[in-house]
Amino acid sequence: MLCQEPLLRALATELLESRGVPASAARLQSDLLIEAELRGLPSHGLQRLPRLLSRVANGLADPVASGRHRWPRVGMLEVDGQRGLGPVVMMSALEALATTVTATGIAVAAIRDANHIGMLAYYAEQAATRGLIALVTCNSEALVHPFGGTQAMLGTNPLAIGLPTGGAPFVLDMATSLVPMGRIHAHALRKEPLPEGWAVDAQGRPTTDPEAAKAGTIAPFGGAKGYGLGLALELMVALLAGSALAPEVRGTLDDTHVANKGDLLLLIDPGRDAAGTRRLSLYLDALRASRPADPRHPVEAPGDGMRRRRAAALRDGIDVPDALFDELHGLRAALA
Amino acid sequence: MLCQEPLLRALATELLESRGVPASAARLQSDLLIEAELRGLPSHGLQRLPRLLSRVANGLADPVASGRHRWPRVGMLEVDGQRGLGPVVMMSALEALATTVTATGIAVAAIRDANHIGMLAYYAEQAATRGLIALVTCNSEALVHPFGGTQAMLGTNPLAIGLPTGGAPFVLDMATSLVPMGRIHAHALRKEPLPEGWAVDAQGRPTTDPEAAKAGTIAPFGGAKGYGLGLALELMVALLAGSALAPEVRGTLDDTHVANKGDLLLLIDPGRDAAGTRRLSLYLDALRASRPADPRHPVEAPGDGMRRRRAAALRDGIDVPDALFDELHGLRAALA
Repeated sequence: MLCQEPLLRALATELLESRGVPASAARLQSDLLIEAELRGLPSHGLQRLPRLLSRVANGLADPVASGRHRWPRVGMLEVDGQRGLGPVVMMSALEALATTVTATGIAVAAIRDANHIGMLAYYAEQAATRGLIALVTCNSEALVHPFGGTQAMLGTNPLAIGLPTGGAPFVLDMATSLVPMGRIHAHALRKEPLPEGWAVDAQGRPTTDPEAAKAGTIAPFGGAKGYGLGLALELMVALLAGSALAPEVRGTLDDTHVANKGDLLLLIDPGRDAAGTRRLSLYLDALRASRPADPRHPVEAPGDGMRRRRAAALRDGIDVPDALFDELHGLRAALA
Repeated sequence: MLCQEPLLRALATELLESRGVPASAARLQSDLLIEAELRGLPSHGLQRLPRLLSRVANGLADPVASGRHRWPRVGMLEVDGQRGLGPVVMMSALEALATTVTATGIAVAAIRDANHIGMLAYYAEQAATRGLIALVTCNSEALVHPFGGTQAMLGTNPLAIGLPTGGAPFVLDMATSLVPMGRIHAHALRKEPLPEGWAVDAQGRPTTDPEAAKAGTIAPFGGAKGYGLGLALELMVALLAGSALAPEVRGTLDDTHVANKGDLLLLIDPGRDAAGTRRLSLYLDALRASRPADPRHPVEAPGDGMRRRRAAALRDGIDVPDALFDELHGLRAALA
């Protein structure tokens, strides 16, 4: 069902407010979900809303908490998320860090006990739009096997990097898994086989059967290097945030456990340097103009596809699966 | 030629001192080269020494400079490398940051105009051994094509991450290229074809001919994600260090240009947390004990292979190519 963005935004906000989420927090949480839909990342979009509402209802998400801040050192912010909504806790930390880095140049927030923060690109872009460099990461439920291994030991541990440029901010946002688990589920729904190398089954055997893969584990991206990066992020998050490690992480995909993963937000203030950021834009344009492997597909920079999809969805609407549309309207009808 | 490590170390130190490098700096620069040899990374080992000596001789490397430090903000160190030896400038910055982070929790050094800093794992391990988290990166000559592209637009932009654990430090050190250019040269020497996907020729056509690849460009690791990571590092280094961007970088592979790349060193002090670091060791041990894809090859953590190669080389010696051995001894004979 093709829906216009303002209607979906109003619906999400209304449902959140009906569970006691204050208006500003409901708008922010909705913005995260809607922006994910607009950018073609439905796994971080409205499909998360019903579970989020039930987490609020059953006390796993506190609708009014924004996190308790403690500064053990001048550039280091420890955030007790107090079971708050992920975007609310994250944006509160981002505001605090953005103020700090004008004095310190660099600062990091380590966050535990916040709910799912959603699409990391959101925070990286917010920071880059203010002229700051951002690194954002978190750990998550064990879904990924080590390089050369077959057991789910690592989260999909995404990394987002944002930088100011002379034009639109540079925003990279990538999971360190080869594919998202949502892609495996999509293949299962369509009964399409998986490409080789994506996943192993519960017994650790390579499989192209998406049903077998759902019970198994997915590969890290980029072989040993992607595995190493995902593992380094896992360790860094756990050490700084004091969060659980992937095999013990719960609460971002269910509505039965407290979210015990950790989130990191690192900001650097490069100072006002119009010539420096302009140089980055020129270089990115040179990359885009460089000789492509296939003349029909020009070279792109990270974020280009996201911006294209967003513009199209704002114009044409967001395609929401019928079942999800019905579920959300059912929840709304129940309010009346 | 199999050589014992102490003899090679003495030879390298003597050659550096003969060019006016002070004893402590010569020992440090030699340590970088020898550690790379011990860990099976000869591309960052003694083969770099003859060019380094000629860079000192012709004024492109200043044997006594250690970098001028300026702190524009309390957590941000700007280093003018003054054409100093890479390891000397880096370790001076590391010492300054390590002191700072006990107060600030986090700090970053942006370094320009230093010579090649060598194997990044060295600095990450130094920091992790002191209980600090380290991120180290730099940019370099354009050797890598964008994902979907065919022109050399990016450096091999390595990333090293070090973390303290209850046992040996965790050290990841990886280039964001699929393979190092040195591997292409090694295939060319042995007249062995390259695996598909490693490289394109000067006209941008996929090639398995190593000679054609030497004139062409190598792929980023991990497809679009590895490309995105390498690009983000390129931009971050250029913006913070004010260095050249890859297409204009010179001076780490030649002895005719000033080294105009940039280097970044970011340290975080996680505080003394014996339980936290011990938890990381236990998790890494669980990873290593997890079910492997091939029972003959247990799962490893980054750095495991490096430590194994180092122990073997300390016991059995370092295999130095005869031509390089002769070249180094020729340089030594010329001193007499």
